Amino acid sequence: MAEPRPSSRTVADSAGEPATGAVLAAPAVPGPGAVGVLRPLGVGQVRLDPDGLLGQWYRRNATATLPHCVDRLETSGNLGNLRAAAGEAEQEFRGMWFADSDVYKTLEAASWRLAASAPGDEAGLRAFVAGTTALLARAQRPDGYLNSYFTLVEPGERWRKPHWSHELYCAGHLIQAAVAAGRAGVGDGLLEQARRFADLLVARFGPDGVDEVCGHPEIETALVELYRLTGHGPYLELAARFIDLRGRGLLTRGPFGPGYFQDHVPPRDAREVAGHAVRQQYLLAGMIDVAVETGDRELLAAAGRLWEDAVHTRTYVTGAHGSRHRDEAYGSPYELPPDRAYAETCAAIAGFQCSWRLLLATGEARYADEMERVLYNAVAVAVSCDGTRFFYSNPLQVRTGHVGGGEEASTRRLPWYSCACCPPNLARLFAALPGHLATADDEGLRIHLYGSATVDAAVRGVPVRLRMRTEYPWQGRVELTVTGPAGSAPWTLALRIPAWCPAYTVLVDGVPVRAEAPDGYVRLRRVWAHGTTVVLDLHLPVRQVSAHPRVDAVRGCVALTRGPLVYCLEQADLPPDAVLEDVRLDPEAPVVLALANGPGPSAPPVTLIASGFTVTTAGTSLYRTAARAGGTTTPVTLRAVPYFLWGHRAKGAMRVWIPARPAPHENSG
Amino acid sequence: MAEPRPSSRTVADSAGEPATGAVLAAPAVPGPGAVGVLRPLGVGQVRLDPDGLLGQWYRRNATATLPHCVDRLETSGNLGNLRAAAGEAEQEFRGMWFADSDVYKTLEAASWRLAASAPGDEAGLRAFVAGTTALLARAQRPDGYLNSYFTLVEPGERWRKPHWSHELYCAGHLIQAAVAAGRAGVGDGLLEQARRFADLLVARFGPDGVDEVCGHPEIETALVELYRLTGHGPYLELAARFIDLRGRGLLTRGPFGPGYFQDHVPPRDAREVAGHAVRQQYLLAGMIDVAVETGDRELLAAAGRLWEDAVHTRTYVTGAHGSRHRDEAYGSPYELPPDRAYAETCAAIAGFQCSWRLLLATGEARYADEMERVLYNAVAVAVSCDGTRFFYSNPLQVRTGHVGGGEEASTRRLPWYSCACCPPNLARLFAALPGHLATADDEGLRIHLYGSATVDAAVRGVPVRLRMRTEYPWQGRVELTVTGPAGSAPWTLALRIPAWCPAYTVLVDGVPVRAEAPDGYVRLRRVWAHGTTVVLDLHLPVRQVSAHPRVDAVRGCVALTRGPLVYCLEQADLPPDAVLEDVRLDPEAPVVLALANGPGPSAPPVTLIASGFTVTTAGTSLYRTAARAGGTTTPVTLRAVPYFLWGHRAKGAMRVWIPARPAPHENSG
Repeated sequence: MAEPRPSSRTVADSAGEPATGAVLAAPAVPGPGAVGVLRPLGVGQVRLDPDGLLGQWYRRNATATLPHCVDRLETSGNLGNLRAAAGEAEQEFRGMWFADSDVYKTLEAASWRLAASAPGDEAGLRAFVAGTTALLARAQRPDGYLNSYFTLVEPGERWRKPHWSHELYCAGHLIQAAVAAGRAGVGDGLLEQARRFADLLVARFGPDGVDEVCGHPEIETALVELYRLTGHGPYLELAARFIDLRGRGLLTRGPFGPGYFQDHVPPRDAREVAGHAVRQQYLLAGMIDVAVETGDRELLAAAGRLWEDAVHTRTYVTGAHGSRHRDEAYGSPYELPPDRAYAETCAAIAGFQCSWRLLLATGEARYADEMERVLYNAVAVAVSCDGTRFFYSNPLQVRTGHVGGGEEASTRRLPWYSCACCPPNLARLFAALPGHLATADDEGLRIHLYGSATVDAAVRGVPVRLRMRTEYPWQGRVELTVTGPAGSAPWTLALRIPAWCPAYTVLVDGVPVRAEAPDGYVRLRRVWAHGTTVVLDLHLPVRQVSAHPRVDAVRGCVALTRGPLVYCLEQADLPPDAVLEDVRLDPEAPVVLALANGPGPSAPPVTLIASGFTVTTAGTSLYRTAARAGGTTTPVTLRAVPYFLWGHRAKGAMRVWIPARPAPHENSG
Repeated sequence: MAEPRPSSRTVADSAGEPATGAVLAAPAVPGPGAVGVLRPLGVGQVRLDPDGLLGQWYRRNATATLPHCVDRLETSGNLGNLRAAAGEAEQEFRGMWFADSDVYKTLEAASWRLAASAPGDEAGLRAFVAGTTALLARAQRPDGYLNSYFTLVEPGERWRKPHWSHELYCAGHLIQAAVAAGRAGVGDGLLEQARRFADLLVARFGPDGVDEVCGHPEIETALVELYRLTGHGPYLELAARFIDLRGRGLLTRGPFGPGYFQDHVPPRDAREVAGHAVRQQYLLAGMIDVAVETGDRELLAAAGRLWEDAVHTRTYVTGAHGSRHRDEAYGSPYELPPDRAYAETCAAIAGFQCSWRLLLATGEARYADEMERVLYNAVAVAVSCDGTRFFYSNPLQVRTGHVGGGEEASTRRLPWYSCACCPPNLARLFAALPGHLATADDEGLRIHLYGSATVDAAVRGVPVRLRMRTEYPWQGRVELTVTGPAGSAPWTLALRIPAWCPAYTVLVDGVPVRAEAPDGYVRLRRVWAHGTTVVLDLHLPVRQVSAHPRVDAVRGCVALTRGPLVYCLEQADLPPDAVLEDVRLDPEAPVVLALANGPGPSAPPVTLIASGFTVTTAGTSLYRTAARAGGTTTPVTLRAVPYFLWGHRAKGAMRVWIPARPAPHENSG
């Protein structure tokens, strides 16, 4: 392992440097010595217009989801737990034993939000951050330990149940919140509290300490982030140590096998994602962070290999991960049932975070493709239109007569969960979203995600402002205008061409330019002048997507997609006498667009109108001789809505994968 | 509810009466006043030849499985728990809190075995029954209570955790063992012990007692059986009371919803099977037993409705039940994933028992069809060829790279389980198997399952002996010869024509007879003479079976079946360079039989040779545009083996449902 590199509290002069010169306010900011091709922008450097889809999501998160989470931390007892741990209240411990982590995730989300807010705005959120930071200070033990469950309920068991306790997991989220607060310049004292805890961890688990790892990864990536912010090498070393200690059978207790904890094989030797999907993805994030900061290319390659395995054998078309309800786990290769998809929201979020880290490290467009897919589908579906209800599990099919409900296999977004990991995790992702649209590199700027926004960046020390206007993902036209001076030296504006895009055109000031994208990015290099406008037009055909033939669960089916959006059918859009399970898509008939003034659950801007049939099956026999062909069919017009908007109308069946009639050819492409 | 009818210790004069006039030694023997069309024979009245498949299974059970279970009760601590409860040993409680039930099931199995054995045989088994009966007497509390877990571990919690404790479940299996011992004339004292416990239950839970039900049904059917043997009405009344108390929300504690316990709706109002599959099927058995003994036709109709729902929306082609690992539960209608099928062995056994009960009650062939299906597939697969290793879960597909192992999603039969409910349950089913081949009715004799055996029955008081010779299920020819005098009055020999059978012929003494079977039974009525021989020849074509179009998980696939046997492909039979997931069946090519001198895992008597292809898929993309058809194919010869024999060779992939190329037509039949 390479020696940890020194860091400083401020990011060195770099292309992505914010105009103010302050610490870059974004998650997963590589240190100046890190391996990596791209450099992120701060969340305040990309201001999303409120009318674009990403801007709507961002604003909804700030105005609805984040206040909702703050409120629920109070009503669900999370803050009460901390008050009791501080000796200020009598409350019996409430909720999951790792309930503190919900507080930390919300603090992190609030910090990213405040990093992009004007100093006088968001007074309530500022008060929440300040008050909670002060509360945490009072709940923290003199030695730096901070965990309300083990303080209140099992004080004698501190550090004694690493497979189960989530103590380091909670510590990790505290650290991530503190890093966010530190980068955002809010939460006075939170960073010091986190460091006191982190120093305790270094003393206990460091090279001179015990050989233990946490059953739920998270501490690894958090410690790297803390190292990045503070430059304190032992944090990075401890993160690397946790990675290296994994896979040595330290987590053998309890009903789960070691694979559940990714403790069955050393991470750098792993060939397949395994076990609890969120744990796997959080571990992967830690692996990437350690690898890029230590220059450990073998570990980075291992992380890339696991990402490939997940994406090529165990990822839903929505970008979701985790095929099994049992153990919330990855399954066997190609085991991707749409109905029993567990597809936990947190796994989707973690997948987004891992792809982002690999994108920064490598600059490869496929990681941005994956970010976009999971964001617009598996992540977006988890939040209700009003921002205050959430899915925990995100199946791709719900049947007529669905058995499930409550928190298990729910067909309704719920305001909160007994295990409420997902809602505040969504809050922190959406609060940090602006920072993920664009990056800097040595050549200039790259745009990865398209949304109406103003991007402020420094290119080779020269401030550059770019206006991006688009109706994406509803329309493929993206207009980018340089507003203001952009320096006298040439630099490259790189625009991602998504892998699903079959054709596109690029105009610069109205003039078509030849724009190849062999690696997934169109590169326009020139001296940029104020007012220069680039128009990228991505063709957004409706695509009938089929799955790899080994995905048995969706054989003979197609999914309708357009751009990054996966669409689905809902019972609510069928004639009263038609049952969704009996619907067949005619794959040879054209699919046309229907436009509406959305967005809203009832009137998305673009719905897809397809042709199909309903098949009437005679008899109730579950099995019959195959040779008896036939079946009466009735033509039906099908209306497909964006998957992320399903479940807002009458309760009923939904499906992403539609049986095609005639069946689509198996293909080799 | 009708008044319970009086009964007597001996079965009244009936067509099925054993020649000896003793109590009928068989499970689920309806009382003389019961609603019902058919009357069972005792396990000793049908002597299976040792060379037929059923005879092999019966003998294997007696010589291998049953001794193995007896041995494991010692080594796994079940008997030690009882010794500790009797105050004779210091052993800390071992195993599941309902471990006593494994002892009782084994006692029941031993009793059925002894009922069919000559008095001087099976000395070891007799010693086990006698010794265990004596041990149980010492472990039983003075008030009749008997449960080693609650005696040793949680004495203060007796009867306080009905949703979890399995106390009544264990009591039920004790009672069933005692009934078997009583009917078999073994286990002196066991019946009295069971009655003491049952009397305690009547006092506590009866009409003057508390309104409670057990989280795990079993006591209901057991109490009816005890009533049938003893004629004591309060046992039947209590069973009926437990049925009537269910569905009233008495089981609200714990992490499971009421549906898990079938406590979400009164059983007589239920329209769908729900929750934990074994619990549902055991409850169903109790419903049927109560209904037939009380003449409660509404309850019987409710049971039939639940059976229909299970068979038409939630049963695997192997006859297995339980689609979800999570909660070991039934899922939504048509949710039948082959790979994640939980398909617990105990659920298959319980399904067999319910179908048997409905067959006795109604005489309808479809119930016998279902018994046969589940016996030859979902039950048979659970036992290794040597009879000492067992599956708990019985999936219909295991992938290359299967993730699972140990006791969860195992691909290997294991000698025992930490929750060892299945092995002794198999032992009791196979020990009672002979009694399920034939029944009496008012007209004569009916044969439901075909196997080489000698059947002794009394028809209208006249002893009749029938020799049945057949290679079934490998061949369809069944020869039945009346041996000895068969009375001077005409009676009917009814032979089941399975629903899968497209054609058959019947000869009587070599002369073809017209033999229609509008209700699934050919009826031959005559005065039968010694030596008269009937030859039934069932055609056993290979059938390509497809599933109802709503079964998404196997769309485009066919299963190969022949007679009652479901076949499967195993990786072990493919060329080294072929991967099972890439195999396609050519549904238009003939499937031929290959005969061998089996049975054995390597050389089953009949394997199926089909033609197909392996499909090579270019690229690793999990999703692609459907229009890109093609894919290179290589012809391959496929060898399908009986599903019940899979998993005995090299560890590898297996699948029942084979993708067809070209895809089979959807059908309406």
